[in-house]
Amino acid sequence: MQLAREVVFQPEGKRVRVRSRVSVLEAAHLAGVDITSVCGGKGECGKCRVVIKNVENVNPPTDVEKGVLTSEELSAGYRLACRTLINVSIVVRVPEESRTGKQRLQVEGIEAKVKLEPSVRKYFVKLSKPTLEDSMSDFDRLVEKLWKQYGISVFEAEYEVVKPLASILRNADWKITVTVLDDRRIIDVEPRSTMDRSFGYAVDIGTTKLAGYLLNLTTGKVVAAGSLMNPQIHYGEDIVTRIGYKDHRELQRVVVEGTNQILSDLCERVGVSQEEVYEVTVVGNTAMHHLFLNIYPKYLALSPYTPVIRQGIDINAKEIGVKINPNGRVHVLPVVAGFVGADCVAAILATRVYKINKLCMVLDIGTNTEVVLGNKDKMLACSCASGPAFEGGHIKHGMRASSGAIEKVTINPETLEVKYKTIDDVKPCGICGSAVVDVPAEMLKTGVIDVAGKMNSNLNSPRLREKDDVLEFVLAWKNETSTGRDIVVTQHDLREIQLAKAAIHTGAVTLMKEAKVKEDDIDVVFIAGAFGSYIDPENARIIGMYPEVPLKRVKMVGNAAGTGARMALVSKTARENAEEISRKVKYVELASVPDFKSELMNSSFIPYADLSCYPDTSQLLRKLGKFPKKSILKFRS
Amino acid sequence: MQLAREVVFQPEGKRVRVRSRVSVLEAAHLAGVDITSVCGGKGECGKCRVVIKNVENVNPPTDVEKGVLTSEELSAGYRLACRTLINVSIVVRVPEESRTGKQRLQVEGIEAKVKLEPSVRKYFVKLSKPTLEDSMSDFDRLVEKLWKQYGISVFEAEYEVVKPLASILRNADWKITVTVLDDRRIIDVEPRSTMDRSFGYAVDIGTTKLAGYLLNLTTGKVVAAGSLMNPQIHYGEDIVTRIGYKDHRELQRVVVEGTNQILSDLCERVGVSQEEVYEVTVVGNTAMHHLFLNIYPKYLALSPYTPVIRQGIDINAKEIGVKINPNGRVHVLPVVAGFVGADCVAAILATRVYKINKLCMVLDIGTNTEVVLGNKDKMLACSCASGPAFEGGHIKHGMRASSGAIEKVTINPETLEVKYKTIDDVKPCGICGSAVVDVPAEMLKTGVIDVAGKMNSNLNSPRLREKDDVLEFVLAWKNETSTGRDIVVTQHDLREIQLAKAAIHTGAVTLMKEAKVKEDDIDVVFIAGAFGSYIDPENARIIGMYPEVPLKRVKMVGNAAGTGARMALVSKTARENAEEISRKVKYVELASVPDFKSELMNSSFIPYADLSCYPDTSQLLRKLGKFPKKSILKFRS
Repeated sequence: MQLAREVVFQPEGKRVRVRSRVSVLEAAHLAGVDITSVCGGKGECGKCRVVIKNVENVNPPTDVEKGVLTSEELSAGYRLACRTLINVSIVVRVPEESRTGKQRLQVEGIEAKVKLEPSVRKYFVKLSKPTLEDSMSDFDRLVEKLWKQYGISVFEAEYEVVKPLASILRNADWKITVTVLDDRRIIDVEPRSTMDRSFGYAVDIGTTKLAGYLLNLTTGKVVAAGSLMNPQIHYGEDIVTRIGYKDHRELQRVVVEGTNQILSDLCERVGVSQEEVYEVTVVGNTAMHHLFLNIYPKYLALSPYTPVIRQGIDINAKEIGVKINPNGRVHVLPVVAGFVGADCVAAILATRVYKINKLCMVLDIGTNTEVVLGNKDKMLACSCASGPAFEGGHIKHGMRASSGAIEKVTINPETLEVKYKTIDDVKPCGICGSAVVDVPAEMLKTGVIDVAGKMNSNLNSPRLREKDDVLEFVLAWKNETSTGRDIVVTQHDLREIQLAKAAIHTGAVTLMKEAKVKEDDIDVVFIAGAFGSYIDPENARIIGMYPEVPLKRVKMVGNAAGTGARMALVSKTARENAEEISRKVKYVELASVPDFKSELMNSSFIPYADLSCYPDTSQLLRKLGKFPKKSILKFRS
Repeated sequence: MQLAREVVFQPEGKRVRVRSRVSVLEAAHLAGVDITSVCGGKGECGKCRVVIKNVENVNPPTDVEKGVLTSEELSAGYRLACRTLINVSIVVRVPEESRTGKQRLQVEGIEAKVKLEPSVRKYFVKLSKPTLEDSMSDFDRLVEKLWKQYGISVFEAEYEVVKPLASILRNADWKITVTVLDDRRIIDVEPRSTMDRSFGYAVDIGTTKLAGYLLNLTTGKVVAAGSLMNPQIHYGEDIVTRIGYKDHRELQRVVVEGTNQILSDLCERVGVSQEEVYEVTVVGNTAMHHLFLNIYPKYLALSPYTPVIRQGIDINAKEIGVKINPNGRVHVLPVVAGFVGADCVAAILATRVYKINKLCMVLDIGTNTEVVLGNKDKMLACSCASGPAFEGGHIKHGMRASSGAIEKVTINPETLEVKYKTIDDVKPCGICGSAVVDVPAEMLKTGVIDVAGKMNSNLNSPRLREKDDVLEFVLAWKNETSTGRDIVVTQHDLREIQLAKAAIHTGAVTLMKEAKVKEDDIDVVFIAGAFGSYIDPENARIIGMYPEVPLKRVKMVGNAAGTGARMALVSKTARENAEEISRKVKYVELASVPDFKSELMNSSFIPYADLSCYPDTSQLLRKLGKFPKKSILKFRS
């Protein structure tokens, strides 16, 4: 017999009973307590810090934990949730910095301007009753009427509609509303007129968050929008960890549940029944796409990174558990390649790059950043493993954009004093993506770092200090913070940020080389992505996240992928355009570009190894007296 | 607490535990013991006779039973299974005459001559492996190869095929066989070449029996055929009883199970896996059609008898529980009207009536008999409630065509001695359909009955006797039979037979009037149906089952509906033809024809009220000295 152990999570007091040797992280998942875990419980990321109240009831600290946690922390009960196995009942406190938290999730995007032509339409008809002289089948009667009254040739019907059709028609006294898909397949028959009750749902499945939009299909307008963390987060924060997870059905189940959860909230908010929602459009990167559909994803993560299917997919909602009308459909937009997904296709749709003459660059920033360069004639796209730094990952005090996160930083060039702003204006507990962009820009302008990202150890400021042989810069002193610890940015953190921005920059530069264009040729830079619109475009340019084009050509477009999903929801032409985009975009595999590695090295400089490409930033640095004295080595392949 | 009662059925010794007050008929269903029940357990047909070994453990005989069973039978323990409720454990003997039995089920039909063009085709391909330079999606790779090698444009795939596609391709080293539906939708991908392993299954769902055919789709040949009683029989033998049954899902479940059972037997017999069966075609009358698909059937039985859907239906096999390849399809052929179903469409397909110039009549004999009259220019069809007499129903000693059934009868015109033949040449226990046709013909020729069907009470023969004020004629004496009872044909039985044949004849004559044609104009009479080919065509003509056309124009075509189902299985053109037939056939509702009732009365004479329509039969009777002396009243509306 095995006694169940009880685990209590504080401060919320959630309880769960588990078997022996279950990890605290697994127990937290069971209890529905959010704990950040970037590596998916492999003991690699060190993010799932918890405080165990009765350490005698768990295993002793592992070597992994001894490497990550200080001896003070260990003696205060700090442990990594994924490495801590429960022997006897315990009480666990989850500190604020380890919370996944209620993130600031951006759902706004540019307005979708498309002609209203949804797949799903409703038609009200009054049928004549059958007689011995006119005893044609109920379905024929319906089809004939739709043809005569509306001129549409229906020739298919959902099986579940035909089954009860006879009694629906008679109970409704032959006055009914018919819901038709693509003007050819009947998917619902309802008594009376319900002509104005036709809704659709557009979903953007991000690696980190889900954004959902409820639209009225008779007007094309958004009636409600909402978002949620992607529940797959529990199984690992990055794509590769999730692809490697043993049970993809489980990953599908939770992400579908998440989309259902948003929809149910939106419907309740505006008084719509989920049965009145007839169609869903879905965008997401290729891994999210495959996992949402439970399509075997393994080879997305292995060279040559081929997706299983590129085309847009139509599927019955019930087949994958999406809770809308039982005969409703899900349309998943097409992808381009293993690392350029439906979200990128949707962003191109939303920014109209595929239609216009101007040369555009799109940066859709996320854990993976997609870069697109082109116009209606030709489009190139690549994917950059920018990593989670701009989402607070791999940064010592990094966190998501939730309450208490430092989101804006300025450093006084004279005093090196720091001014910051936190989300909700509460005491800070960490720094989020937009501040992660500010920090190196501010440090460069104030001489805290040089163009190589190296901290200047000769600075005379208490904020710059060395700890365990690593330089760090204090953004907030412990008496200002809610964690009781100093919030710092370390030299390691700067390296992470440099790697992240270098990845994005390399993608942009590589596409420019491939297309043989210069900064001046680029007419517009669209910065998209949930983090996109909170980032300061100037600071992003100063750190060399993207090539130096005039700031007035830079447009923040927010969640462009979500906008594209909404366009596809209300417009069949938009779906056709998405297919065209999917076929037309040429995928550039960065790893196979000859000078990829040297370009990545060059791009890791702030803003770039070759400052002649950044004349404005050079001038600014020169003005501030921070222009590098020695020439920068430019790496060549 | 309620104790379960045990019921033992003899002689097979099957046991079942039931709760109190369950009827013996229900217990028999639970135990899987076949007991004939024409009325579906309503106490109306008196067919479910059983012997209860311990009558003290059941309810006393009901009034219904006292009306049906003699006092000798009641004291011998005879009861009606549907009226007998179980109080305590009992032993039940099911006499042979109450057995549904292993019926002689005809599956043969005329050969289906069609060009081989199945919906389902297999293609073997060897794909190139993806590289960084050629990293298109797995599905694109497959589609491109199918286009280049075979010239087919596939643009759809079954979701369940896409999900594991990546690993199937790689595990098969990119050498695979693709199964494609209609050259546009991939429904299976298998490792290696399985080009020669593609099978289909054609099913004829009769009210009484199911006939199934396993075909090799690469050759178009039948590889095995088999049949089974329609398990819906347990819920009532006639269509109206089944339509009125409370749980249509249950009726669907059992008939699908029946079709699965036949298929599984056929597959085992010839070494085919059910996964290798990709498509099923189904025919049946409109009620069977609706019940097979669980389409609400109520209004089929109510004037104006409109079907819910007329068109042919394609549905995923798994959606209705048909056990073939998980991505396989079921095609249900179209119907014409509420009482003219897909079986009739298939019979027209098989007899090619819709294609030829000759004027044809098709009689598809069953519990409901469909009559078709026409040719390629015009076709009329009607349905006649011929009832179960030709299947042994409503006949005192009637039974199905199973072992021991008298199937052939001749009466010596001098001695009135009876010669009979039984199925399997064992002792007789009842009479089946073909003998039901012989009996009145023989009786007419020997003067046992007159043209009105009335027995001649002046006959000097021990075989003709009166019992309970009803005349009856002994076909087999009790010492010859296996039941220990005389097997007789009563005056009531003759009335039933007259009603049955009158219904068929009325249908035929009504269509002839509608089409303004005479007997001589008819070039071919096709007699179809499971009972069709065992019936003596001459005797059938003598009793006036169909209009008197020269016998050489009469063709027995067996199970033509099954033949049509096979044609549709291997030929897409045949399916299109079926749709055309379904649209083209004009349904004639007999009940709305003005002189229907008088025609029915006229048709109840043997062979017919107006003997001038039966010159050959009149001549025969005249020769035998049995020509009616007084003129026959011809009824007019």
